[in-house]
Amino acid sequence: MTVVAPVRTGNARLFDELRARFGERFSTAAAVREHHGKDASYHELVPPDAVLYARTTAEVAEAVRLCAAAKVPVIAFGSGTGLEGNVAATYGGLCIDLSQMNRILRVSVDDLDCTVEAGVTRKQLNQHLRDTGLFFPIDPGADASLGGMAATRASGTNAVRYGTMRENVLSLTAVLADGRVIRTAHRARKSAAGYDLTRLFVGSEGTLGVITEVSLRLYPIPEAIRAAVCAFPTIEAAVATVVATIQAGVPVARIELIDRVSMDAVNRYSKLGYAVAPTLFFEFHGSAAGVAEQVETVGPLAAENGGGEFRWAESTEARNKLWQARHDVYFAALALRPGATVWWTDVCVPISRLPQCIAETTADIAQSGLLAPIVGHVGDGNFHVGFVLDPGQPDEFTAAKAVNARMVARALALDGTCTGEHGIGQGKMDFLIAEHGEAVSVMRAVKRALDPDNIMNPGKILRMN
Amino acid sequence: MTVVAPVRTGNARLFDELRARFGERFSTAAAVREHHGKDASYHELVPPDAVLYARTTAEVAEAVRLCAAAKVPVIAFGSGTGLEGNVAATYGGLCIDLSQMNRILRVSVDDLDCTVEAGVTRKQLNQHLRDTGLFFPIDPGADASLGGMAATRASGTNAVRYGTMRENVLSLTAVLADGRVIRTAHRARKSAAGYDLTRLFVGSEGTLGVITEVSLRLYPIPEAIRAAVCAFPTIEAAVATVVATIQAGVPVARIELIDRVSMDAVNRYSKLGYAVAPTLFFEFHGSAAGVAEQVETVGPLAAENGGGEFRWAESTEARNKLWQARHDVYFAALALRPGATVWWTDVCVPISRLPQCIAETTADIAQSGLLAPIVGHVGDGNFHVGFVLDPGQPDEFTAAKAVNARMVARALALDGTCTGEHGIGQGKMDFLIAEHGEAVSVMRAVKRALDPDNIMNPGKILRMN
Repeated sequence: MTVVAPVRTGNARLFDELRARFGERFSTAAAVREHHGKDASYHELVPPDAVLYARTTAEVAEAVRLCAAAKVPVIAFGSGTGLEGNVAATYGGLCIDLSQMNRILRVSVDDLDCTVEAGVTRKQLNQHLRDTGLFFPIDPGADASLGGMAATRASGTNAVRYGTMRENVLSLTAVLADGRVIRTAHRARKSAAGYDLTRLFVGSEGTLGVITEVSLRLYPIPEAIRAAVCAFPTIEAAVATVVATIQAGVPVARIELIDRVSMDAVNRYSKLGYAVAPTLFFEFHGSAAGVAEQVETVGPLAAENGGGEFRWAESTEARNKLWQARHDVYFAALALRPGATVWWTDVCVPISRLPQCIAETTADIAQSGLLAPIVGHVGDGNFHVGFVLDPGQPDEFTAAKAVNARMVARALALDGTCTGEHGIGQGKMDFLIAEHGEAVSVMRAVKRALDPDNIMNPGKILRMN
Repeated sequence: MTVVAPVRTGNARLFDELRARFGERFSTAAAVREHHGKDASYHELVPPDAVLYARTTAEVAEAVRLCAAAKVPVIAFGSGTGLEGNVAATYGGLCIDLSQMNRILRVSVDDLDCTVEAGVTRKQLNQHLRDTGLFFPIDPGADASLGGMAATRASGTNAVRYGTMRENVLSLTAVLADGRVIRTAHRARKSAAGYDLTRLFVGSEGTLGVITEVSLRLYPIPEAIRAAVCAFPTIEAAVATVVATIQAGVPVARIELIDRVSMDAVNRYSKLGYAVAPTLFFEFHGSAAGVAEQVETVGPLAAENGGGEFRWAESTEARNKLWQARHDVYFAALALRPGATVWWTDVCVPISRLPQCIAETTADIAQSGLLAPIVGHVGDGNFHVGFVLDPGQPDEFTAAKAVNARMVARALALDGTCTGEHGIGQGKMDFLIAEHGEAVSVMRAVKRALDPDNIMNPGKILRMN
């Protein structure tokens, strides 16, 4: 673990101003700084020089104005559940923690939308919505903040049916690098009015501004929800079933791949008795008849590929337990090897290329000798590899880095992307260039135009010098 | 009609170069220039100084490089079906006509996507797809080019179910203001890799670059499609049915409002015998059982609001005739008043605000004494007013301008947008400022960063000086 660097003397006056203005909500305590210098990834802890717990957009704007005057970096912090080192304070500076901005500002049942502060988490929102008949479907697993999910263009298990944050953010409020505040759109479902600033900020990882409020689409809770687990003889057979399901146009809500290693880990960690085999977790949403129809279509597709019986999670509790187990793959992987750390990475390819991409990646992992479960939101063509590594073995990290680089190169060659949902952060900046080529210069031009002094989360997504 | 301005002498050397390079595909003929200086709107003809019929992305890049060196404006031209004067050559310059870039480059049935050159029209694409079992749903009425639809962030009748160009463009190729070529994304269904340049160019109306290729999502043709027409006693009753349908979460494919005036016009123009009353046109997509379920939900909602019998268009031919009649509202409105021109405008509001917005707009039109049918993609909260005006009566234009301004102000006050799908062009630049406020300065910063000399379709969306 990195030693916490001392507060830079050049920031002393700025920090005096922030302390005078915000009192105890401004902190330079080592423990607070350390908590904010690392996310849930393998990336190194790099603490900010100070942390501010902001409570309003106006406070964020005030803090950013002060930092801009001093040319001190600003890093927005939501729940710390990122996976590419997006919050590490590479160049020091002020971390603005948004977790106290956790008010749900407005829910419109009639318009199927809501507005929340950036620190509201997805579980908090769904808890709040429980009596309205509506829900917010985007579910990356972790109980991430909605501001962070917007900033990372997150998605997760339900994206195959409901889309990602790209499709589900109607509008957002952002504090720009000079402290100005903008709202990117009104609440209309569609608009042809000017450049799509909402989509520009979704996925910008705090490098263009701090997202402080988000307006989101909501959906009626389906009349019927059914979830099932189905084991396959090989990972290829499972993936072939996914491809056939998507190509048949079945509006499946979730279709998740868990490989053999992960199923073993999940069974142990979550005390379940599923077959230790490549497995698909399904969820179907719709009317009772609509769900029955989907099941009737997918069942034979699975059987054709050698899939076993569908094991149904009939009650809401059983369904929740099933998905909790899926989300706990992260912890289950950790538990496979005491003292280990897990380096999660993800790619996404067109669905027809998924079998090749997974097959070649599986072979590469086997060859590397690493322990690295594969799970994925395979309906989108998106899958994850979790390298379970011993922090004391640098050779393992070197091997993981090589497998990761080959997996990304493979995904790009198959017309895919270097990350489906984790973002670029500090971990994939070279891969961004490999993927986008000349277009990266356009991203840089946009960044320079909106943040000429490069104070907004510097060292993430783009190298500016 | 404006007199065609002479070719500017400052362009003579540039035009010599273009002529030498492109031969007969470069033209300064008056008739060619006039054809390219006007779209389907009320906006004045302003011809470009010259027109180039480009055939490849490389040719577009070459032409743009030459124009950039001479600081001469570049205007992309697709099908000329825009509605806000988006192609008028406000500052002269070179119009690049993309209609000869009409190759369908790739269709992947397995991935449900395709790549087309910008000049391919939506009908051409669907004709090409007819044996694949797939279709491209976005349907703005006119047989627009797909590059133009991307540039305008177009949508239309199917958007309530399938989204707009925002959701359906996977990636695009664009020529930047200095002639560099970028591809904005690979083909993965989702990506968290860097800024969303695809969405930045979708809706940019040629002001950030020339879109030359577009990759699009495709959809399986539904197993069952049923379309029906239902008349209502009042426009309020029809709109209430729409709101109830959307709030019930029915995945209706099309739900279109045609007001009394328009129904009368449509009956006459398309020789139909529908009731002359506010009417909804519905289309339901899904499995046979799914469509039946949707109909069973919507029928009672219509009946509760005093709707009449559903008149079903049972055959494909009858259905096509129904939608052709809907799309012919444009011509039907023109036919209401020989020699007239129609000024179409549109706004979009959250669905719960739609009844108020339409009711107040209807009253305002009545008060104005203008003939102005209302039709709309009401499932999105989007509707259109078509002012049927006598070109010889400037007072009518003044009155229309005032009604339009009040309608936009009303939509903005209801948290809506000044345009749901027509774009800003030259007609709504002030409304863009009213809608977005400080955020317009961010759009300007992006424009300056990508087009510092303001040569890409200047005078549209943003005033840069």
